[in-house]
Amino acid sequence: MTKIGLIGGIGPESTIAYYRQIVNGVQSELGPKVFPRLSIETLNPFQVFSFCKEERYEDLAAYVLEAIDNLASSGAKFAALTGNTPNIVYDKLQARSRIPLISAISATVEAAQARGVTKVGLLGTVFTMTNSFFKRPFEDAGIEVVVPEAEQIAYIQTKIETELEHGIVKDETRSRFIEIIEQMKAKGGIQQIILGCTELPLLLDDGASPVPCLDTMQIHVAALVKTIAD
Amino acid sequence: MTKIGLIGGIGPESTIAYYRQIVNGVQSELGPKVFPRLSIETLNPFQVFSFCKEERYEDLAAYVLEAIDNLASSGAKFAALTGNTPNIVYDKLQARSRIPLISAISATVEAAQARGVTKVGLLGTVFTMTNSFFKRPFEDAGIEVVVPEAEQIAYIQTKIETELEHGIVKDETRSRFIEIIEQMKAKGGIQQIILGCTELPLLLDDGASPVPCLDTMQIHVAALVKTIAD
Repeated sequence: MTKIGLIGGIGPESTIAYYRQIVNGVQSELGPKVFPRLSIETLNPFQVFSFCKEERYEDLAAYVLEAIDNLASSGAKFAALTGNTPNIVYDKLQARSRIPLISAISATVEAAQARGVTKVGLLGTVFTMTNSFFKRPFEDAGIEVVVPEAEQIAYIQTKIETELEHGIVKDETRSRFIEIIEQMKAKGGIQQIILGCTELPLLLDDGASPVPCLDTMQIHVAALVKTIAD
Repeated sequence: MTKIGLIGGIGPESTIAYYRQIVNGVQSELGPKVFPRLSIETLNPFQVFSFCKEERYEDLAAYVLEAIDNLASSGAKFAALTGNTPNIVYDKLQARSRIPLISAISATVEAAQARGVTKVGLLGTVFTMTNSFFKRPFEDAGIEVVVPEAEQIAYIQTKIETELEHGIVKDETRSRFIEIIEQMKAKGGIQQIILGCTELPLLLDDGASPVPCLDTMQIHVAALVKTIAD
């Protein structure tokens, strides 16, 4: 069994979900008394947001790389980020990391291709929705990516920062997110919606959403479990 | 802020509870945008049980020490075990570890002394209830420790292994645990009950238990938060 390193804390609630789902996934594959070999290094999500806001990408890369380096020192054979926003510096991380990274974005592109969709909506932090790092790999694969309107983007970022990163789930927030997806479906013609922030599954799933969800965390965990179990 | 290393996975559910409570505790002390610096190394609880059953204490110590060593390599300044059972080799761990350990048992003895209790019940794994490593520090402090009857000990171990380690919580199991505590109160005269396995708070708290609980996890987390924040 291959030891995995997780960059967690971005945010803490998604770290917990990754951990629980990886344990469950490995046990489903290999048996109920098997546990993954796993190390977790936790970062501060507000530090990550702060670097992104100030566009201090070298500092962000150094911050994440130090944690990846600690995982490598503890024997992890590959690493994964439990948040999508830090993927803004994925190219720098991949180029400099001592161990391979497994990307949630690449795994989600593959899942979207497998489902045959050609137009998807994207929800995530303001950095994920307004920069190209998340959208480009989809567009390179021939999948169009629609994002919400500017004021909706600001609303989503506020809710991620003030509620979801703290594990706070409100019905009122869920309703507003559903309205935003409905509008992206009606006006933008999206077929599915990417839950492109690993805190969003706290709020949305296929049952709640007006279109099927591409849950980056679920898709990423499946890819990680496969690598651990191989 | 001092970086903490957690030995997790023993079991996974208590690792999640430790992580969540440490984050919350540090934020209560230092502010809502502060996150603890934290690494987690996860072990396999069934491997720990297996070493205990076979009394392979040198192998158990080596297994835990490798994980502590990984935490030290990742920059952790002190380490803590998220399970009580591996404390069976605490003396070996403390003697050989590169970084100091913070003991849940010592913290619980101090809490019991602060509450002025002189006779407590102990619930935990069969190894915790039948060996001396957990009881002796209490007895050294003048606090008598009562454990359940042999068949009750076997029942508790089975429920920990087959339900609680998997995050399964059943009302029927809770009722039986409450009966056991009631009997320890009636026959043994216990004033409080030690939840001496970090999965037991899934089942019991002051609301459910017939006597007040000494929750080793809560008490341990408070000690860890104090060390991190200092």
